[in-house]
Amino acid sequence: LSNEAIFIELMRAIANDPAARGLLDDVAVVPFGSETLILTHDMMVEGVHWLPDGDPADIAWKLVAANLSDLAAKGAEPFGVLLGYMLGDSNWDHRFAAGLKEALGHYSVSLLGGDSVGRKELTDPRAIGLTALGRATYLPVPSRTGAKAGDRLWVTGTLGDACAGFRCLSSGMTGHDALVHAFNRPEPRLYEGKILAPNINAMMDVSDGLLLDAHRMAEASGLALTLYLDTIPLSDAYRNLCGNRLENIIEATNWGDDYELLFAAVDQNPVRKLCSSVATQIGFFSEGKGLTLISNDEIVSLPAILGFQHQ
Amino acid sequence: LSNEAIFIELMRAIANDPAARGLLDDVAVVPFGSETLILTHDMMVEGVHWLPDGDPADIAWKLVAANLSDLAAKGAEPFGVLLGYMLGDSNWDHRFAAGLKEALGHYSVSLLGGDSVGRKELTDPRAIGLTALGRATYLPVPSRTGAKAGDRLWVTGTLGDACAGFRCLSSGMTGHDALVHAFNRPEPRLYEGKILAPNINAMMDVSDGLLLDAHRMAEASGLALTLYLDTIPLSDAYRNLCGNRLENIIEATNWGDDYELLFAAVDQNPVRKLCSSVATQIGFFSEGKGLTLISNDEIVSLPAILGFQHQ
Repeated sequence: LSNEAIFIELMRAIANDPAARGLLDDVAVVPFGSETLILTHDMMVEGVHWLPDGDPADIAWKLVAANLSDLAAKGAEPFGVLLGYMLGDSNWDHRFAAGLKEALGHYSVSLLGGDSVGRKELTDPRAIGLTALGRATYLPVPSRTGAKAGDRLWVTGTLGDACAGFRCLSSGMTGHDALVHAFNRPEPRLYEGKILAPNINAMMDVSDGLLLDAHRMAEASGLALTLYLDTIPLSDAYRNLCGNRLENIIEATNWGDDYELLFAAVDQNPVRKLCSSVATQIGFFSEGKGLTLISNDEIVSLPAILGFQHQ
Repeated sequence: LSNEAIFIELMRAIANDPAARGLLDDVAVVPFGSETLILTHDMMVEGVHWLPDGDPADIAWKLVAANLSDLAAKGAEPFGVLLGYMLGDSNWDHRFAAGLKEALGHYSVSLLGGDSVGRKELTDPRAIGLTALGRATYLPVPSRTGAKAGDRLWVTGTLGDACAGFRCLSSGMTGHDALVHAFNRPEPRLYEGKILAPNINAMMDVSDGLLLDAHRMAEASGLALTLYLDTIPLSDAYRNLCGNRLENIIEATNWGDDYELLFAAVDQNPVRKLCSSVATQIGFFSEGKGLTLISNDEIVSLPAILGFQHQ
């Protein structure tokens, strides 16, 4: 087991409150007064989550987007954030503040508070945390545990663009603005999350790679999942840069940073119609366990790495 | 201006929501459904907020306590936390989890969620953030801006113990368990905060040093503040180790990590009686501005450093 897996098990033993949802769901769901509060916290670390020469405005945007994406997957309406900020140099801080303002303004979310701290050495890598708060728009709040045998698996948007964008950035390749934009400025699916929430059986966002996150949904729901790799939605920009072969499809599904919504829904109208208006059907759940990949009517062996996990 | 002061000004320009209280109050106060949510986020950094050889269980305790202290100062009843955790080695993680469990159990607060992240290099200093949530027990929720001319300033407990405990720890001096305990395991004044909230005009916790925090309350309230240094409450343990001279009193007031409550209240019974049952009167507010220190009926010049601020 990785250190991360061990630590999450330690935390799970502490998190007995039903609001924690067994730490299985990226969010906490807290009945509060007459409403339901939905909370999430994401942390980003220099050198792990962003390139050392990344624009701090993009980093701020992505930190906001990654948190709002967790709320989107629960059909929540975000309203506020708290920031835990490690001070950098003055230029960095100014650019970060500009990106934060832009992202919060774009999504009409308030900066409510937070904390700023110094570093021991100015060369120490920064860590920045964000807590995002939203209100539930539909009860019960979608979980990742609710998929049923026979449900279809759907995903919004296209996959792999951020991965390709990252490769362009790290290799200095220019001319692929849409892919770089997908990496730097992901757009959480808040609208889709709200219209889907009343109509699906399980929902989560894809942040660590489709294969890993889809496998997590199947495991949490106690089901087997079959994925049709040939139906995985890829953008033209991705196909043009990376290609369209099986290995390119798999690369688009095990890297992460997509911030699309992944959901399980019954295969009946009008649900099917609604789902197909915002997403692509890519697989189905059945009794049993495990993840099966299909391409060209053949079973494809699982890649060694299903997605992004900390060591 | 320090980088921290500049960054906080940048954040203040973004934080227009009244729930943010102009980032003046360590907490956000969010009307939500039929109740009022109170939120705070504190971050701690290895080498800045804790000694490299500190017990991770103590660090976890202190992170919880520092956050709950902010809630205590608003009369809030805490109910949950979200953790942003940078993975260490396995032993460190286990000890941290043990301390977290102990602190949360002690205060009946739930772990609701969070995030764990890797570090680029295992030698990089850790940063850990905690968001704490509580519900208001009294409206309006106390602020630090509400002191009135004529109000008396009070502080709970004793000051400087954590400072003295830190000095014992860093110099390897043994036999001062109470002081070391004050540094490692501060106890937020949750009970006092709740009984004081309906009876005071302004309240905050003392975390960055009494002089700095009291000065902040006076500034936020648009008033002058006079402090009687000879009335500053010091523990016997502090007096025995550090002494009782003016310089020792000042040292107890400009270091921080006290997590006591500082509040302004009208000088009339029954409020005075209630305040004196949980706190010590140390000064008074008047029209004007600035901080005046008095000892032995003489004005004492302000020390160069009023408290702890990040560079």
